[in-house]
Amino acid sequence: MPKTKYYYFNLKSLGESCRLLLAYGGEEFEDQRVSMEEWAKLKPKTLFGQIPILEIDGKQYAQSNAICRYLGRKHGLAGSSIEEDLIIDQNVDFLHDIRIKGVMVHYELDEAVKAKKHEEFTKNLYPFMLKKLNEIIEQNNGHLALGKLTWADFVFAGMYDYLKMMLRMPDLDEKYPSFKKLKESVVTLPKVKEFCANEPETDF
Amino acid sequence: MPKTKYYYFNLKSLGESCRLLLAYGGEEFEDQRVSMEEWAKLKPKTLFGQIPILEIDGKQYAQSNAICRYLGRKHGLAGSSIEEDLIIDQNVDFLHDIRIKGVMVHYELDEAVKAKKHEEFTKNLYPFMLKKLNEIIEQNNGHLALGKLTWADFVFAGMYDYLKMMLRMPDLDEKYPSFKKLKESVVTLPKVKEFCANEPETDF
Repeated sequence: MPKTKYYYFNLKSLGESCRLLLAYGGEEFEDQRVSMEEWAKLKPKTLFGQIPILEIDGKQYAQSNAICRYLGRKHGLAGSSIEEDLIIDQNVDFLHDIRIKGVMVHYELDEAVKAKKHEEFTKNLYPFMLKKLNEIIEQNNGHLALGKLTWADFVFAGMYDYLKMMLRMPDLDEKYPSFKKLKESVVTLPKVKEFCANEPETDF
Repeated sequence: MPKTKYYYFNLKSLGESCRLLLAYGGEEFEDQRVSMEEWAKLKPKTLFGQIPILEIDGKQYAQSNAICRYLGRKHGLAGSSIEEDLIIDQNVDFLHDIRIKGVMVHYELDEAVKAKKHEEFTKNLYPFMLKKLNEIIEQNNGHLALGKLTWADFVFAGMYDYLKMMLRMPDLDEKYPSFKKLKESVVTLPKVKEFCANEPETDF
């Protein structure tokens, strides 16, 4: 059996989706929660100076979304053709587009610019994008793509709390009940549920 | 033969990589260059309100990177295992990480914040990231992944001029000769070269 280690901060953010997929796949893995002190030492040893890192028998792989796709294909959560995989990928990338807008606000250092940007996105961008995301989920039987469970749902479930924080929308559950429902449908899958019950609690 | 249309602005930016892959694959396609007037009408008819769109027999697919991966797999430019595909994906995503930093500067509306952000990234981020990218290319025989031609090289080649503009580094060719060489290695592939010779010229 290969020795699998997964490195990320003690956060969900961009790292939880892979953990959920590892759990779903029944993979034994060391869930390494990296503290800031450890990160300073680990960073230069990582592929791109970033985590998450998935390490299999000493070989490192990077980039959360790429790792999610890999684990999804490994555990039967991908499409059955390259066209189906394209649909998964495009919907996941659209989800990340929404996240990245939030990132552009969240990591803005100038407070006045940050407030202005959030206001602008809240007025002109988020409503359209979130409505579209909601439509996608409703058209796909509560899933993000292909009308069934795919690794895309894990990407969504893992980063949903982080997305809420990035968009500054604590009421996202109420605005779009399909979002919470999608997250719940993943985190209540038996092996995933077991994993979540035993992992450290974090806000996002 | 399926009827293929590809919609993007008359720019390279995030749309050229797919065009180069379509050309490499010998696919007959309508290269629709969308003007701003046309875009206003087309936007509500697109999947996510975004282009590029690849339309095959009337079915739309979105998201440039997802389309590139699809075309790469279709035309023999992917890995030969899910681990190899993961390496392609992670390196492509790292390239996009660099691009997104540039985007965060380029689309900043406040001029003072823009200048400050560019200065900070130029000092603290770009050198590390570009050095890492250069290492990847040098370790892969001049390619972005797997030591051979993959669809990742097309992603790079298609967006290289745009990247230079986003990073405000017109001297990137000189700083990292491996970058220009990688782009050249793609755009001089016979079918790609023929396509490029006949497409409209654009700066980025």
